[in-house]
Amino acid sequence: MTALTPELTALLDDHHVGVVATAAADGHPRQSVVYYARVDDALVISTLGGRVKADDVRRTGWASLSVRGDEAPYPSATFSGPASIETGDLAATTALIFRRFMPDVEPPTEEQLAEAGRVILRIAIDRVSAVTHLG
Amino acid sequence: MTALTPELTALLDDHHVGVVATAAADGHPRQSVVYYARVDDALVISTLGGRVKADDVRRTGWASLSVRGDEAPYPSATFSGPASIETGDLAATTALIFRRFMPDVEPPTEEQLAEAGRVILRIAIDRVSAVTHLG
Repeated sequence: MTALTPELTALLDDHHVGVVATAAADGHPRQSVVYYARVDDALVISTLGGRVKADDVRRTGWASLSVRGDEAPYPSATFSGPASIETGDLAATTALIFRRFMPDVEPPTEEQLAEAGRVILRIAIDRVSAVTHLG
Repeated sequence: MTALTPELTALLDDHHVGVVATAAADGHPRQSVVYYARVDDALVISTLGGRVKADDVRRTGWASLSVRGDEAPYPSATFSGPASIETGDLAATTALIFRRFMPDVEPPTEEQLAEAGRVILRIAIDRVSAVTHLG
């Protein structure tokens, strides 16, 4: 496991939007913008279980997340590693993500998440690459 | 070729930073933050010929770029398609990119670009996906 430096930890904790990438079945990269939260050395993303990125993770067991600052020169890094899709015990983890960008809204319950078909995409940070303008 | 809608064209032209993704040799996605410019239905990125993302493009002939707005709810889209590495006639295209974020600085000459080992990574936009909060 790659140790997150204080600068990398701050980059992750100071922002709440990133770009997740997975490998599609045809081998091409697939990217989408997501809200995320950091839990120790892992990144968690709330998505729908039927989304193609969830299929990619089930098939390949790997994903990456690119995070950058909002101001030039845009400090940034890519965090990647083994990834999995979690379908139970979602409420507490999902609340961590939702509270980062909607602090005043009650996060969804376990039942609401199940009905909506939501899952957690979890990335265990194994590699940090493409680090720019940090520290 | 996917027609760019006015909303997608505006998203690309109103921003100058995105996340490029390529497929690494091990099949995992590789991501990094880059400056870009749009030229008709293509996206151009200035990078170093020795970078791993340039190797990925030479090997796979494909790349994608994720672009998002700066304010919640973060309008975004991913543009992907056949990609190539250009090693000559770089100055005019590179100037298009440099002028977007350094309008007051004279862009590098052909000779300077060659000496620095810079190349152009060009993506012909073939697919637009993961479109959120646009139009």
